Amino acid sequence: MRLIRFGEAGYEEPGVLLDDGRAIDASTEFRDYDEGFFACGGLASLGKWVDDGCLGGMLIPDGTRMGPPVARPSKIVCVGKNYAEHAREFDSVVPEEPVLFMKATSAYVSGSDDVVIPKGSEKLDYEVELAVVMGRTASNVAEEDADDYVAGYSVLCDYSERAFQKERSGQWVKGKSADTFAPMGPCLVTADEVSDPQALRLWSKVNGELRQNGWTGDMLFPVNYLVSYISQFMTLLPGDIIATGTPAGVGMGYKPPKFLEAGDCVAFGIEGVGENVQRVVPFTNRS
Amino acid sequence: MRLIRFGEAGYEEPGVLLDDGRAIDASTEFRDYDEGFFACGGLASLGKWVDDGCLGGMLIPDGTRMGPPVARPSKIVCVGKNYAEHAREFDSVVPEEPVLFMKATSAYVSGSDDVVIPKGSEKLDYEVELAVVMGRTASNVAEEDADDYVAGYSVLCDYSERAFQKERSGQWVKGKSADTFAPMGPCLVTADEVSDPQALRLWSKVNGELRQNGWTGDMLFPVNYLVSYISQFMTLLPGDIIATGTPAGVGMGYKPPKFLEAGDCVAFGIEGVGENVQRVVPFTNRS
Repeated sequence: MRLIRFGEAGYEEPGVLLDDGRAIDASTEFRDYDEGFFACGGLASLGKWVDDGCLGGMLIPDGTRMGPPVARPSKIVCVGKNYAEHAREFDSVVPEEPVLFMKATSAYVSGSDDVVIPKGSEKLDYEVELAVVMGRTASNVAEEDADDYVAGYSVLCDYSERAFQKERSGQWVKGKSADTFAPMGPCLVTADEVSDPQALRLWSKVNGELRQNGWTGDMLFPVNYLVSYISQFMTLLPGDIIATGTPAGVGMGYKPPKFLEAGDCVAFGIEGVGENVQRVVPFTNRS
Repeated sequence: MRLIRFGEAGYEEPGVLLDDGRAIDASTEFRDYDEGFFACGGLASLGKWVDDGCLGGMLIPDGTRMGPPVARPSKIVCVGKNYAEHAREFDSVVPEEPVLFMKATSAYVSGSDDVVIPKGSEKLDYEVELAVVMGRTASNVAEEDADDYVAGYSVLCDYSERAFQKERSGQWVKGKSADTFAPMGPCLVTADEVSDPQALRLWSKVNGELRQNGWTGDMLFPVNYLVSYISQFMTLLPGDIIATGTPAGVGMGYKPPKFLEAGDCVAFGIEGVGENVQRVVPFTNRS
């Protein structure tokens, strides 16, 4: 199943994308894809509603804005340097354990929204990542049980301001949390439709140039391990997002670096999960 | 004005603590002290309701559990090493800019709840902090305007597992985010009742022994500066919490270190804002 949310930013309604390509409004039956939805068996109810023919669900008109596919989560936990080749381009240190950091959830937007260059930013970078959306509360979960806690997958770009991240007195969150820095989309693909999350090609392009061309099988720590590992340090709530790290090819890895500029077009996607296209726009006082 | 929330964990109702000591249920008039409350002028409405005599508000019975004074926020932004003497006991590096990190909001509890030692933890530490609760959306706010964005103040203990924080492959969030690691209470004191947030004594005691005895005037970066600074890197939403750093005297600063153990009693407070008392309890599979 493919979950979508549509409508004005901040006022999105839930919907589903059917196998035949139709996008159906599910808001007559479901309030939102949020913590309560996942916690209270919403995915099963939605599946039944879809199997029964989406009774009462109207077609979503073409051209409607697509929002991020789940509601703003309680947290976005990110995994740093989870692909060896990217760890080498970042700082040459391949971690012994997953490196965790957070993005402010106020950065969460749709994969089709513009990404805004923050005020004072000169080193804006992109990082395509497989996003895991939690389906249940997870605390000290065993690796072999981790599958049961995952609702599904999406595509997230972990935008990063490298100067804010690395040159402004420590802790990466500073370079990871500007508004629009966590676009996710285009849909949430439920876990039953992703036969192996470690066998997906993921890529990013800037102005048509292929920059990242990775393979989730190259993760140093795979999804099951990450869910288990993170749940030892904090409780993951239903609807929470894990961004599982990015493969090599980010802007800072080039010599000279290829940071983003206003007017650039960033496309990022994962085979079988979806693709997003964004414009890079300058900061204005209305941003 | 002093805002409180009362009732079972996860089902708290809003209330107010009056100057005469009475605790009044405000749930007939207000749904919760959450993002929407602060965004939509809730504080002014509540003030008017209190001035008018809390019409319809019942007395909250003695012995009722007190929850955290505002709803779970979208984020808890913490400031590291914001008192010079603590920076020296931590790692001897006094930062040139505020060091920011996040706590998972799933760690957020009441200042009277138990603090649970996480599974595998051996270095549990306490950090009393002045907590700032945001009253408005703040993005790129000037230091001289920062006052206008603050709803009020509370007392937060930034519990930290030092091994998770410092010995497990980088980024502090890992040692800051276990369940119960962000207790706040006992109330939110509105900004109009705190004449100078940089003139408050803050302290913590373990089993009656005074461990931290600080003064908010010793902050390297004061509240106004922090609100402005953080708002350059991320948008602060109404109800978001800033934990402004801790003075010297944490467990890791002693030789040998004085980490917390099951059975310990931790008290922490700020003059004029409030005091909390917690028990330290071991992890169980029911935790």
